[in-house]
Amino acid sequence: MQLYSFFNSSTSYRVRIALALKGLAYDYHGVNIRVGEQREPEYVAKNPGKGVPLLVENDGTMISQSMAIISYLDERYPEPRLIPTDLIEKTRVLEIANLIACDMHPVNNLRILGYLTKRLGVSDEDKSGWYNHWIKEGFDAVEALLERYGHGRCCFGDEPTLADVCLVPQVGNALRFGCDLSGYPRLMAIYEYCLTLPAFEQAAPANQPDLIK
Amino acid sequence: MQLYSFFNSSTSYRVRIALALKGLAYDYHGVNIRVGEQREPEYVAKNPGKGVPLLVENDGTMISQSMAIISYLDERYPEPRLIPTDLIEKTRVLEIANLIACDMHPVNNLRILGYLTKRLGVSDEDKSGWYNHWIKEGFDAVEALLERYGHGRCCFGDEPTLADVCLVPQVGNALRFGCDLSGYPRLMAIYEYCLTLPAFEQAAPANQPDLIK
Repeated sequence: MQLYSFFNSSTSYRVRIALALKGLAYDYHGVNIRVGEQREPEYVAKNPGKGVPLLVENDGTMISQSMAIISYLDERYPEPRLIPTDLIEKTRVLEIANLIACDMHPVNNLRILGYLTKRLGVSDEDKSGWYNHWIKEGFDAVEALLERYGHGRCCFGDEPTLADVCLVPQVGNALRFGCDLSGYPRLMAIYEYCLTLPAFEQAAPANQPDLIK
Repeated sequence: MQLYSFFNSSTSYRVRIALALKGLAYDYHGVNIRVGEQREPEYVAKNPGKGVPLLVENDGTMISQSMAIISYLDERYPEPRLIPTDLIEKTRVLEIANLIACDMHPVNNLRILGYLTKRLGVSDEDKSGWYNHWIKEGFDAVEALLERYGHGRCCFGDEPTLADVCLVPQVGNALRFGCDLSGYPRLMAIYEYCLTLPAFEQAAPANQPDLIK
């Protein structure tokens, strides 16, 4: 398999965790979204969504959108399962995963922060206020849902699911921006635990070939 | 079942379409997100995500996040299937659905546009520029993916899937904001076709009990 990825992209990080948990090997292709490589014609021909990640399967099938990629991987290579088969457990996993993937990540990613500062002239202080506002809105909800429905060392049980696959990159991103996450003991404990697992270590931004220090 | 919804919310509209396609009856509870009813303590106790939609099943199970709700409904009430069982077809449906649900809707919804104008003082012209920018980025990608992989009267085949369930509210939203969508003949033909189906008519914003004219 081929993975087009950027070391610091949270959505790429999600897919790298899923691949690592499943023990799937792949060739890594760095796409530097800081300098706009995702908008180069050769790449857009592969991924009209102009983003990372993009997975190219061995048979040439190209899949964009991290949630679609992970759903594909989970059905094609089901061990270990990241999306539970029990309906209610699966629904709880998807609820947290989509809360992060829809309500949190898209409003704070590189392209949005870039538009705010470069095109709308938003100050660094206001950009930071924006970032922290959406992190708080989202993690308040994640923490409340975990208190209500979570169990085990991970979000749901003792083994990682898609909820953890989405949570860890989002926490990492918030910490990189200097957010105070001390008000979220439950999700932070899950984050710390997941970081001790080899698959999460292998998938971490710092361990990618396109790392920019 | 109980559905907490706002007539003009695209994510509520998605769930209403899914419920209507499956012929499921429900009690409608309007939550006026324009005046902040989603932040009232009684509602937050139900949905810590402070948003609509929220589905309450007959057994009391509460589910937030439209994509999680529809996945639940599709497994619990599988006729007609909105997420295909064929792996590649399912992946293509999820790719388009997530492109809309993650890359398009979250950056242009009411809370984001409100933050831009009320808290950052962005002008109406710049707000319109922002809205149109993300619509173009997203629909350019949707149209390209449909040209490559789409088939039939709907996005994938002659019957609606989750891709159409996400597409129709997003197109409706863009038209409401006055976007020129003439450059997207394929997705507009699908939109026009879906609007002729009774389930989409029943779910439309104009036909909801909490309609504000």
